[in-house]
Amino acid sequence: MTEKKLEKVAGNGLISRRHLLGMGATGVGLAASNSVLGQNSGINFEIPGWSRTPGPGPSNYGSRSRYTAAVQRSTAFQNPTYPGGGASRSPLQHLQGTITPNALHFERHHAGIPDIDPAGHKLVINGLVRQALAFSYEDLLKYPMVSSVYFLECAGNSGALLRGGNEDGTAQSIHGLVSCAEWTGIPLSTLLDEAGVLPEARWVAAVGADAASMGRSIPIEKALDDVMVALFQNGEPVMPGQGYPMRLFVPGWEGNISVKWLTQIKLTRAAAQFRDETSKYSDTLPDRSSYQFTFPMGTKSLITSPSGQMSLRNAGIYQITGIAWSGSGSISRVEVSADGGQTWADASIQGLQLDKALTRFTIPWEWNGGPAVLQSRATDSRGNVQPTRDVILAERGNISFYHNHCIQSWAVSNSGEVTNVYV
Amino acid sequence: MTEKKLEKVAGNGLISRRHLLGMGATGVGLAASNSVLGQNSGINFEIPGWSRTPGPGPSNYGSRSRYTAAVQRSTAFQNPTYPGGGASRSPLQHLQGTITPNALHFERHHAGIPDIDPAGHKLVINGLVRQALAFSYEDLLKYPMVSSVYFLECAGNSGALLRGGNEDGTAQSIHGLVSCAEWTGIPLSTLLDEAGVLPEARWVAAVGADAASMGRSIPIEKALDDVMVALFQNGEPVMPGQGYPMRLFVPGWEGNISVKWLTQIKLTRAAAQFRDETSKYSDTLPDRSSYQFTFPMGTKSLITSPSGQMSLRNAGIYQITGIAWSGSGSISRVEVSADGGQTWADASIQGLQLDKALTRFTIPWEWNGGPAVLQSRATDSRGNVQPTRDVILAERGNISFYHNHCIQSWAVSNSGEVTNVYV
Repeated sequence: MTEKKLEKVAGNGLISRRHLLGMGATGVGLAASNSVLGQNSGINFEIPGWSRTPGPGPSNYGSRSRYTAAVQRSTAFQNPTYPGGGASRSPLQHLQGTITPNALHFERHHAGIPDIDPAGHKLVINGLVRQALAFSYEDLLKYPMVSSVYFLECAGNSGALLRGGNEDGTAQSIHGLVSCAEWTGIPLSTLLDEAGVLPEARWVAAVGADAASMGRSIPIEKALDDVMVALFQNGEPVMPGQGYPMRLFVPGWEGNISVKWLTQIKLTRAAAQFRDETSKYSDTLPDRSSYQFTFPMGTKSLITSPSGQMSLRNAGIYQITGIAWSGSGSISRVEVSADGGQTWADASIQGLQLDKALTRFTIPWEWNGGPAVLQSRATDSRGNVQPTRDVILAERGNISFYHNHCIQSWAVSNSGEVTNVYV
Repeated sequence: MTEKKLEKVAGNGLISRRHLLGMGATGVGLAASNSVLGQNSGINFEIPGWSRTPGPGPSNYGSRSRYTAAVQRSTAFQNPTYPGGGASRSPLQHLQGTITPNALHFERHHAGIPDIDPAGHKLVINGLVRQALAFSYEDLLKYPMVSSVYFLECAGNSGALLRGGNEDGTAQSIHGLVSCAEWTGIPLSTLLDEAGVLPEARWVAAVGADAASMGRSIPIEKALDDVMVALFQNGEPVMPGQGYPMRLFVPGWEGNISVKWLTQIKLTRAAAQFRDETSKYSDTLPDRSSYQFTFPMGTKSLITSPSGQMSLRNAGIYQITGIAWSGSGSISRVEVSADGGQTWADASIQGLQLDKALTRFTIPWEWNGGPAVLQSRATDSRGNVQPTRDVILAERGNISFYHNHCIQSWAVSNSGEVTNVYV
């Protein structure tokens, strides 16, 4: 197929149009075929066993094929002194489209997953309000709800890249703390209206019902904007690992602030200075001053295929594909380079292109069998452009590993092995 | 709350604006509180057990709360002479938003679910093509893919309404053969291009690898339009119950034609007249002539809450919500009536409003404690309006139960019980 004339749009093999891939096997001269499928086509096709006997019927809750076991979250080392703490990462290199199935949405827990009976759970709104209120789960189900597709990304995602190393990193191990779902819930503003926010309230302190009492502070302007108390994820009740029976959802902002197992919203004059906004999720600079409250996640993208630990078998045409997102808007453009950033071509955006949601991009690439460095660079609807790693390191060093949204470089070797590199 | 002046937009309590619902419980005068949550708010809040001890940590594949067991598909009677046959229905009254989780997507099988090893599965394209081709799963993963959110609806969905009865029907039992997901796959046109469609080819015959060899015919114009060979559903590989490793996906058309476990695409001059397009999925009229090949699903909607077998406890404000869809375009309008169709008000459309996809609508309603009949009526982007049951019965009688998209009526009794009725 590489003999055809392909229109090049950037260096090292990026091409513009859809080309015939010619992957289908043609007949191999066998005159006899034992299947109607192959009749008169020269294709020999044995009827497989699974087509010969009826299988099991419908079920109440579906399960996956045993052949897709590799499509799973990766769980990091469990620290025995930190029970229930840790994270699991979405298998980005195995996923397609933009929606993450609930069972594969990344997790980050600070004291494990509480087993909450919704009948015993309350959401309290108190502090600087006219009237403190407590809502039961049943109460909340009666409120008007809104739905939006949003990404959620841990502030620590991709942090490993700032530290260096990770030559064996994969899309999942380096970047798997990002996922995307259709979230449905009650606008927080609706509930705050009922409690009556006093004029002196400037912050909202949100606390979860986990054993860590994980808490975060949110400026009142955001709390009254697009924040929701999410009860459903991709249509069904949120899973325990995502905050059942309810979580805060703060679109576009670092994941930690979307407090799971939400049980308290307290209106305050100042930020509460919770542990997770002082010792954690703040960024210490080389001069030892720190950025605090870096809320919106950066404009970012990532090639998920080809990506780390994959290998290309033969020279020829490959579909480069990946995901892009921004905490400040929608994705307006994704460029791809096959020569380590020397030249760039616009990728196509496929499917949903929504505000603060994962966006899928794709571009065909003819690998000539030689070395290549694949990169992607996102631009969002506000004109923010994804920076290189060098820019981020120059700005703030590598003491903190949070809030890294630098360009990922995947090297393809002569033998087709794909590895994480720094260029 | 019913003392407030509410702006009425149609008869029997449909109201226009968001109103304070006042469901949160206020303090009950207990001076002492054993939780920081309730401090100074008068709210007594016992710290629950699940907040006192760390829970389990992250996992490779998430699971649901044991308190959401009711949110499951319903499986119909299994006929022992029809092994693996039957259906399961999505729990529409428990779902929110527009996406159906993969494990809750409805199923309809004709010989159960084959346990397919993708390494042994082939997709053959033959018949009126320049070159018959066989594609492996690995081959197909290399092709450029597209993603779209689409509903899928069984032609037999809601058929029970034409027969009458079903006073105890629920949204799930009557209408649960519709679901919605983000589907990702290869445009069928891409693969047909590679095989080279001959000019005399007018139809495509698609056959599955199940033991029923379920087959359907598709006109070539549709096959070259938006049909895909779907490999992923909501991001992950399609589940076995949905066709793993691959299914045809024919947007907007009756579900049966989106052949699961797809193993053959044969280009032909005429429709193949498979069993499932002659004895089944065709509509016999009172004069015993039949409609064949009713492909696009009708413009349709359904109130999912309140709906059959729910009960309203007290007079007051409720959020009416439901789903709407059309096989011919997007949903442009949903109207709701609380007086059995005498007066109508426009519902709000919430979230995604996509072509051939479920669309969520909502409108507040003040139930005065008296009898009511709730209905919804969808209009699509082509101007098609959802008909009443009487119109459908007058047009084609009730011999066939397929392709029913009539307006659903839910009666609310004085005691707040909701039942399926015919008005």
